[in-house]
Amino acid sequence: MLTLYDFPTSGNCYKVRLLFAHLGIPFRRVHRDILKGETRAAEHLAINPAGKVPVVETETGARYVESGAILWHFARGTRLLPGTVEDETRTLQWLLFEQSALAIPLGRPRYFIKILGKGGEFKDDIAKLMPLGQQALARIESHLAEGNPYFVGRRFSIADIALFAYAHLAPDGGYDLAPYPAVRDWIERVRAEPGHIAIDER
Amino acid sequence: MLTLYDFPTSGNCYKVRLLFAHLGIPFRRVHRDILKGETRAAEHLAINPAGKVPVVETETGARYVESGAILWHFARGTRLLPGTVEDETRTLQWLLFEQSALAIPLGRPRYFIKILGKGGEFKDDIAKLMPLGQQALARIESHLAEGNPYFVGRRFSIADIALFAYAHLAPDGGYDLAPYPAVRDWIERVRAEPGHIAIDER
Repeated sequence: MLTLYDFPTSGNCYKVRLLFAHLGIPFRRVHRDILKGETRAAEHLAINPAGKVPVVETETGARYVESGAILWHFARGTRLLPGTVEDETRTLQWLLFEQSALAIPLGRPRYFIKILGKGGEFKDDIAKLMPLGQQALARIESHLAEGNPYFVGRRFSIADIALFAYAHLAPDGGYDLAPYPAVRDWIERVRAEPGHIAIDER
Repeated sequence: MLTLYDFPTSGNCYKVRLLFAHLGIPFRRVHRDILKGETRAAEHLAINPAGKVPVVETETGARYVESGAILWHFARGTRLLPGTVEDETRTLQWLLFEQSALAIPLGRPRYFIKILGKGGEFKDDIAKLMPLGQQALARIESHLAEGNPYFVGRRFSIADIALFAYAHLAPDGGYDLAPYPAVRDWIERVRAEPGHIAIDER
């Protein structure tokens, strides 16, 4: 069975649980509390020298890191990773966009406000991130508003799983989704996919 | 012929030129000056709604964005994208690590200091980024110091091209590479690859 080294409130870890739920892949969870420094402890650094979660470990000891690469690896050959060259490249574009432009500006304010409970202390950092987060939301809004129900190939895929994680959690970081109606509709479409689980659901 | 929408001092644009040099792929360059706001002008937003470079456009009008996805797309089927499932996943891990943890902390200080010439004005931002950049350098150092000459499969690939761009430019952002001897050796190995071009070389 696969092992997921997991911090349950992390959007990046949630992506992996959501993929496994959709594909019916069984796994066990090992809890790593980021707030207690467990991802920076020697025991975890031996598993991932980058000191991060998620990490997925196979029974033979192979380990996979970077949420987008984990999605790609375990979705290969399934309905969740479109198989044409063109769709593969489009999927990769969205996975990279999510990590370069969306996860940090949408995820960090949530981390400061909701997870650390220190929104006031980090208000300058949050103020700097908000315009970047709004740009990221506007970018995904413009794609969806062009009549695309999903991000690649008109069907639900790992591109949606990757983008959904921090996009649907954005309000926890103080973002208002009212100006992004196509994003709100897409969030409901993702939630309605058979096999969907919420971030706080096993 | 391919068209590259290009800002010559951008590390992300350099990755694409370096790939095309290695593969002998001809292309024409269209200059977009980030400092003059050209990537945020209507003419460019029509090409890439994210308002960024690089963008590669084919003769049939298909457009590719996100430097890592461009590397993947054009390296597919060549010696620069290892073909096994395992090596593909490892390549993707490094492409995502580069965008999530390396490009911004190594690239932004260089942008403030060398490109804008405003290191003093942005010194607080730079000070916040430096520990993250040092972590990213330590991560690639630890991989290389384990006896890996390159990042995937013991040979030069797009993972090296992606990581090389901002890693070799880190000193322009005030980073000292002395504590990272394996990174320094690898930089020299990448420079010695047949077909290599420098960032300011066509």
